[in-house]
Amino acid sequence: MTTAPETTAPEATRVAVVPSYIRDTWWTPAESTGKGAEVRDASTGELLAVVNADGLDLKAMVEHARTVGQAGLGKLTIHERALKLKELAQFLNGRKQELYELSFRTGATKIDNMVDIDGGIGVLFTFGSKGRRELPNSNVIVDGPLEVLSKDGSFAGEHIYTRIPGVAAQINAFNFPVWGMLEKFAPAFIAGVPTIVKPATPTGYVAEAMVRLMVESGILPAGSIQLISGSARTLLDELDYRDMVSFTGSAGTANLLKSHPNVVHGGVRFTSETDSLNAAILGPDAVPGTPEFDAFVKSVVTEMTVKAGQKCTAVRRSIVPAELVDDVVAAIGARVTERVVVGDPRAEGVTMGALASMEQLKDVRGAVESLVAAGGRIAFGSLEAPEVVTASGQKAVVADGAFMSPVVLTWEDALAPALHGTEAFGPVSSVVGYSSLDEAVKLAAMGAGSLVASVATNDPEVARTLVTGIAAHHGRVLVLNREDAKTSTGHGSPVPHLVHGGPGRAGGGEELGGIRSVKHHMQRTALQGSPNMLTAVTGVWHTGADRNLADPADPSTHPFRKSLAELRVGDAMRSELRQITREDISKFAAETGDTFYAHMDDEAARAAGVFPGIVAHGYLLVSWAAGLFVSPEPGPVLLNYGLDNLRFLQPVPAGDSIRVTLTAKQITPRVTDEYGEVRWDAVLTNQDDELIANYDVLTLVEKEWPKKA
Amino acid sequence: MTTAPETTAPEATRVAVVPSYIRDTWWTPAESTGKGAEVRDASTGELLAVVNADGLDLKAMVEHARTVGQAGLGKLTIHERALKLKELAQFLNGRKQELYELSFRTGATKIDNMVDIDGGIGVLFTFGSKGRRELPNSNVIVDGPLEVLSKDGSFAGEHIYTRIPGVAAQINAFNFPVWGMLEKFAPAFIAGVPTIVKPATPTGYVAEAMVRLMVESGILPAGSIQLISGSARTLLDELDYRDMVSFTGSAGTANLLKSHPNVVHGGVRFTSETDSLNAAILGPDAVPGTPEFDAFVKSVVTEMTVKAGQKCTAVRRSIVPAELVDDVVAAIGARVTERVVVGDPRAEGVTMGALASMEQLKDVRGAVESLVAAGGRIAFGSLEAPEVVTASGQKAVVADGAFMSPVVLTWEDALAPALHGTEAFGPVSSVVGYSSLDEAVKLAAMGAGSLVASVATNDPEVARTLVTGIAAHHGRVLVLNREDAKTSTGHGSPVPHLVHGGPGRAGGGEELGGIRSVKHHMQRTALQGSPNMLTAVTGVWHTGADRNLADPADPSTHPFRKSLAELRVGDAMRSELRQITREDISKFAAETGDTFYAHMDDEAARAAGVFPGIVAHGYLLVSWAAGLFVSPEPGPVLLNYGLDNLRFLQPVPAGDSIRVTLTAKQITPRVTDEYGEVRWDAVLTNQDDELIANYDVLTLVEKEWPKKA
Repeated sequence: MTTAPETTAPEATRVAVVPSYIRDTWWTPAESTGKGAEVRDASTGELLAVVNADGLDLKAMVEHARTVGQAGLGKLTIHERALKLKELAQFLNGRKQELYELSFRTGATKIDNMVDIDGGIGVLFTFGSKGRRELPNSNVIVDGPLEVLSKDGSFAGEHIYTRIPGVAAQINAFNFPVWGMLEKFAPAFIAGVPTIVKPATPTGYVAEAMVRLMVESGILPAGSIQLISGSARTLLDELDYRDMVSFTGSAGTANLLKSHPNVVHGGVRFTSETDSLNAAILGPDAVPGTPEFDAFVKSVVTEMTVKAGQKCTAVRRSIVPAELVDDVVAAIGARVTERVVVGDPRAEGVTMGALASMEQLKDVRGAVESLVAAGGRIAFGSLEAPEVVTASGQKAVVADGAFMSPVVLTWEDALAPALHGTEAFGPVSSVVGYSSLDEAVKLAAMGAGSLVASVATNDPEVARTLVTGIAAHHGRVLVLNREDAKTSTGHGSPVPHLVHGGPGRAGGGEELGGIRSVKHHMQRTALQGSPNMLTAVTGVWHTGADRNLADPADPSTHPFRKSLAELRVGDAMRSELRQITREDISKFAAETGDTFYAHMDDEAARAAGVFPGIVAHGYLLVSWAAGLFVSPEPGPVLLNYGLDNLRFLQPVPAGDSIRVTLTAKQITPRVTDEYGEVRWDAVLTNQDDELIANYDVLTLVEKEWPKKA
Repeated sequence: MTTAPETTAPEATRVAVVPSYIRDTWWTPAESTGKGAEVRDASTGELLAVVNADGLDLKAMVEHARTVGQAGLGKLTIHERALKLKELAQFLNGRKQELYELSFRTGATKIDNMVDIDGGIGVLFTFGSKGRRELPNSNVIVDGPLEVLSKDGSFAGEHIYTRIPGVAAQINAFNFPVWGMLEKFAPAFIAGVPTIVKPATPTGYVAEAMVRLMVESGILPAGSIQLISGSARTLLDELDYRDMVSFTGSAGTANLLKSHPNVVHGGVRFTSETDSLNAAILGPDAVPGTPEFDAFVKSVVTEMTVKAGQKCTAVRRSIVPAELVDDVVAAIGARVTERVVVGDPRAEGVTMGALASMEQLKDVRGAVESLVAAGGRIAFGSLEAPEVVTASGQKAVVADGAFMSPVVLTWEDALAPALHGTEAFGPVSSVVGYSSLDEAVKLAAMGAGSLVASVATNDPEVARTLVTGIAAHHGRVLVLNREDAKTSTGHGSPVPHLVHGGPGRAGGGEELGGIRSVKHHMQRTALQGSPNMLTAVTGVWHTGADRNLADPADPSTHPFRKSLAELRVGDAMRSELRQITREDISKFAAETGDTFYAHMDDEAARAAGVFPGIVAHGYLLVSWAAGLFVSPEPGPVLLNYGLDNLRFLQPVPAGDSIRVTLTAKQITPRVTDEYGEVRWDAVLTNQDDELIANYDVLTLVEKEWPKKA
């Protein structure tokens, strides 16, 4: 346990109160307030801390986020914030051991800690990188292509994203106190939206330790994170349409929050990720002896036992060919027997820890009992308190430890509602049979919306049928076969690159998914106006906007002579016309080897119905265009690293001439390098000013020229 | 009024009941049921119809949509459905006159009819076109780039969209019975989701006529549309997480529906678009005498009077420099006096019709009275019943006609909550002053979330400050200046290409926005697996998946020799290596004119720090690659129309060799042509199999070869 600050430290004889962090200051309640909730070591029952936020000024927290938090984050660009996330991740990487030690007390094993703590820091790294690679270095993100809305091009529209003007209130579950916090914090931070985080009580002391490290790092601007250690029952009273709530936890709590008037009537954005009854489907081809059967069984056992099965994404329902139910149960049982050692995570050799608390244990046992009452049969394991490995390495039944054995259920009635609707949030899973792919799809869909499903098959047609059948009921689908069995990140592990969430029972929300989750913290707005005004608002040059044309008589005015310090969007050059002869085309064909008939044979070209006769190669056009726009001497333009969206709009017959107009379209200085990306709009026109081709030319350009010493 | 079918036609002495359309059959209630709601001509008070859906089997409708509707739509691809929308639009275009005649009875003028009826048909055209141009010709849409999740590339992830497995329940407002229906129907139809539409009672007879034409067209698959003419109070009871509700109307009704347990707890997708207090901001530069001032005044008057101001997007608040309030009010008044003729839309010269009903008129008058009580002053117009032009061309006060004069309010207190919160849904608007851009932003934001705002300015910096300041509070922002004043589609007109909706008070939803709205009818699912499995599910070839390589010794096996009938994704060719000499580079430089120093001067190239010495032009590489992959004789590949995502990954020094591998990646046969698009994955590697460049080559390929006669 990290301790509360000196000024409010409780007496030494009392256990510490987990502090909150409000308005950039640590806070604990006055001693006279109620006693709060007690938090105990999951394996031993030892009292660790008290959680109590009575008297915390939630209104002031929200106000602080909307003012100080928004202001501080808004001073930075998206790339600057992304770089801070990377720096934070590096800082935290050096302090992991402290978190591991604390986290053992929650019942988490070493592997569980990797998932939670290393996984959480990994999310920061991923967003730190994606924010800089995939977003502009500004605070306005353009979404999708321009839509020209008038014939003359003077009126057009497009979409922009700007951050929401409020706070991201993040309410997390007990099972992943670090990952669960950071996977929500990272995208909010990149978007520029301050966070108020509310961890779950049983493991909130781990989250508090993480927030403390984040604050200690000194990397984050004031107001970007605040922490509620305790109840946040009235937080939603303070929020409005400018804010968002991201909730992870039980469907019951989610529904309660979703019913709040400020959500229903007040426009608070609300997203939730709740546990669901995730399925794993074994394909008919994946019979015992195949790599897919083995991968399936391995995955189910992993999902039952990692974090003692306390995962929203765990496999709760194995849907397997009816004739393979017994084989699957036997294989799961064998693997559990062979691999799973239940005990105190601090003991050597333990592979499955305790549930988070005795309350959780009671809940899970109760859920299993209700499943049995509804027709489930315990085919492996039992509900009896297991003998476990204690911290000292002895084997014992620990009365105050929240330990449980893995349990596998089978069902006579595959359609039993409890099988598809009652979740035991622990090391518990059911196996049920299907007799056709359609039935497998139907059974999977009976989860009424799930976070994830696995499909184990090596048959592409089976994969296609099952995945397209179940996709709309799921937030994520993993296809497991011999090719990815070893390299898969696993059924239960959301990755920051892909969305996490699911429809219906799974909460109907969407987190992660790379930049998608950043955008969930922003408002998409349709923007209409003239090209000049769209350019002014977005900072990106738009076709039809004014150009600052170089003087052809003065090569020093060429935009390629300008460093990022001098270059502005709209800076442009227009080349001379250059005529293309039949001989040029023949020579290009001979030298490149591109002897496509349209460049070689007038008659064949005309016969195709799409060419007026022999035409120039598209590759000739862009090669010549480079010759027309290049400024050959060494200068700030380092290199041309690519081309985007090249379209040949009209064939160019021999005798025609081409000209290129090149305009600085988007300038993205890198926050970590002495150069940046410049995207140029390139337009090829002919002697009659007709459009021949357009594309974007991508270059790296120095920030200063000549380079700084 | 269209009549009910013979079998259920009411007695001639009674007025007709507007029929519903359920399970592909017209339906009216049994005569014994309650009398329903009466609907009257807005200008004359004449009784037109009765609306009554008592006894309608909503459960059966939902079931029909989920089964017959889903099945029929699912047999078609996205392109096939898009083409049907185009055909439907063409059919309806020929039957517009019938709808105009009906629509006059709602108080709509000719111009209002253009917006509603022609605008609605225009949405079908736009989606018919966009669906085919911007989406694949299949039923799985890939969203965003591939994320490689293992070092060896054997495990990767991406996102797919598949349609939701339920029904789109569309609840519409009275003001645009045709456009409001078709703007929701079109994206649902393209997605493959069946519609149940519930028009508003006062103008539902126009929507019914439109549905009748849609059914008569014979173009739509069974179950793709059903109509509820009457109350749908219990519709939400039948919906679950597979379904979605798209609501347009009052915030009050939206909140009622949003509170339904099936939305809060059941996972029904819910989007709403409610009226809001939209602002128009006049920039400090846009003083009287400027084109921006004139455009601003014109826009405000248009928005006050089109559809008699009964538009969710109307300008309710003009936010203008404090010193210009009087000028703006005077200019609005002058333009109204000059241009606005209130009366029966069937009379010559009328430019503003009646409100939709006497109830509406009462509501609007009441709202104005409460605005006045809250500090508003009527600076132009009055609440007295106006003298209007009747259908016969006389001038008269019509007791049973829902007519009202345009009203402009001014305010001493710019912060009065009623000004920013009370909507008069008629020809009513307020003008209020600001003294700084920050204050203008603050006032606009006091709408607490709006559909749209206009900013009239010709100063790019003012545009940037105001737009980025208000964007997150708005679904759409229009910048009005001298460049787009004549060509703008207008403040009040959502266009199908751009999103319609807004945060907070505006409902928090998003409609239209082109393909974005199609995706709102689909579930986004993260898909993980090996490249072969991702290929199997999406139908798009993925890097790392198996290739079916052509035999270099047999040119007839080259994938360019295959028509769409024969070509499969994964069909590929790998070229020989070709060496690039220093001479080749010099020659290419001389002929193209691309004499960038990196291709000319070893020392300068090395000095730049990014090249190993003289390197080949990127354009040389792709030109040669074309020479290496081309199959020269006339064949099914018609032409190469573009290139996407070209990246040069490594410089190629003289002496190195390159090879190209070309693989059919995505095949998109056109539904209207004898050819289609084929996207090829192109990879350049060197003599050491290192990656040099990659890109997509875009071609048109014949469906059959030789072509059918």
